[in-house]
Amino acid sequence: MKKLVQHVYDQFGVTFNDRSVLIEAFTHSSYANDHRDEQIRNLERLEFLGDAVLEVTVSEYLYHKYPNHPEGQLTRMRASIVRAESLAKLAKEYNLHQFVRLGKGEEQMNGRTRPSLLCDVLEAFIGAVFVDQGMDVVKDILKAILFPKIDSGAFSHGMDHKTALQELLQRNGVVTIEYTVVDKRGPDHQKEFVVEVNVEGDLFGKGVGRSKKAAEQAAAKVALEMLEESNES
Amino acid sequence: MKKLVQHVYDQFGVTFNDRSVLIEAFTHSSYANDHRDEQIRNLERLEFLGDAVLEVTVSEYLYHKYPNHPEGQLTRMRASIVRAESLAKLAKEYNLHQFVRLGKGEEQMNGRTRPSLLCDVLEAFIGAVFVDQGMDVVKDILKAILFPKIDSGAFSHGMDHKTALQELLQRNGVVTIEYTVVDKRGPDHQKEFVVEVNVEGDLFGKGVGRSKKAAEQAAAKVALEMLEESNES
Repeated sequence: MKKLVQHVYDQFGVTFNDRSVLIEAFTHSSYANDHRDEQIRNLERLEFLGDAVLEVTVSEYLYHKYPNHPEGQLTRMRASIVRAESLAKLAKEYNLHQFVRLGKGEEQMNGRTRPSLLCDVLEAFIGAVFVDQGMDVVKDILKAILFPKIDSGAFSHGMDHKTALQELLQRNGVVTIEYTVVDKRGPDHQKEFVVEVNVEGDLFGKGVGRSKKAAEQAAAKVALEMLEESNES
Repeated sequence: MKKLVQHVYDQFGVTFNDRSVLIEAFTHSSYANDHRDEQIRNLERLEFLGDAVLEVTVSEYLYHKYPNHPEGQLTRMRASIVRAESLAKLAKEYNLHQFVRLGKGEEQMNGRTRPSLLCDVLEAFIGAVFVDQGMDVVKDILKAILFPKIDSGAFSHGMDHKTALQELLQRNGVVTIEYTVVDKRGPDHQKEFVVEVNVEGDLFGKGVGRSKKAAEQAAAKVALEMLEESNES
């Protein structure tokens, strides 16, 4: 218990006023079930709250960070950030799972490193910080552990290539990205489209596909690979 | 435009610092499309934000209001409050739709009173208040227009009878609600269960059903009707 308090202070600079809230956030339902007679609270209520707190803080961040992104793009970005897989990764990075009170059966079945548990614990922890410390402290923590990842494009993997290319290029301001069909060939039942993607007038990639949409995606993919290569060298 | 500013002040006591944010929240995409050359922003980005702001404020309210409700129950309550139908009703109650800038085609097709538009405008308005005035003003507004409805059980309709009964009875603290199978009758393929529901030891209702679960729901329904009748008289 002391170790958890110390860990939270070391990693996030936070000291809880009410330690019982912190402990609740690190108590899995399987542990509460193993100690049913003690009426221990599990993390689920805090997870309910933390989930909404994460959603609104990420939404606010994206809204201000990308003042020219249409709603659809913001929604896709948010989804890729707050999805269970991303949050589980974050929880593991900060070793949150090591401090979870887990039931015996769950421990034996390697529940501690299960992505769903990792994600739940992160959300419950955010919920606990919100209840005990307020929204501003939540934001401070996310500024340290999550927002820089957004800025560096860590969540672009789940996106389609066109969106990912746009994210990457528009990170520092609006740029013009244009897709142009430069060729349409083959018979009707086997048509092929050739699309070029131009960024601020320069050719960045060329793609081929069975539909205009597929060719655009292919072109964006080529452009992304080209950009990644030039970044690495 | 002046009328919108006045309406928002009259209804919610709020004066926007940046009126353009307020106007954006009341600009439907169909209007922006009709005036494409003017590059007008529509309400969708604010709706994206307002949706998350509503979710977190309602979550926080429920979390504190019902300290003993398990997560599943909180989630069901939240869903019934923030669902489109509920929000559309609220938007109509406060006449928000009358101030929306709508495209001509949309207006002719009675878009102004469509539930999806009503819901979108309410979310966008909440998003605009959040951006221009901050979270505390959002909460003040919801304390006036939404939370009292939660307290009075206005969102219990979407719930199953057992949950609705629990909401109603536990609004002012925990009470013991017990369901007991008092009879099981009929042959296997046509079994009937009889269930009694007792509240703090007193019989509140009796229900019959083909399964234990169905009989419990029937008993809860009887109890709810009994409580509603005694409230009305």
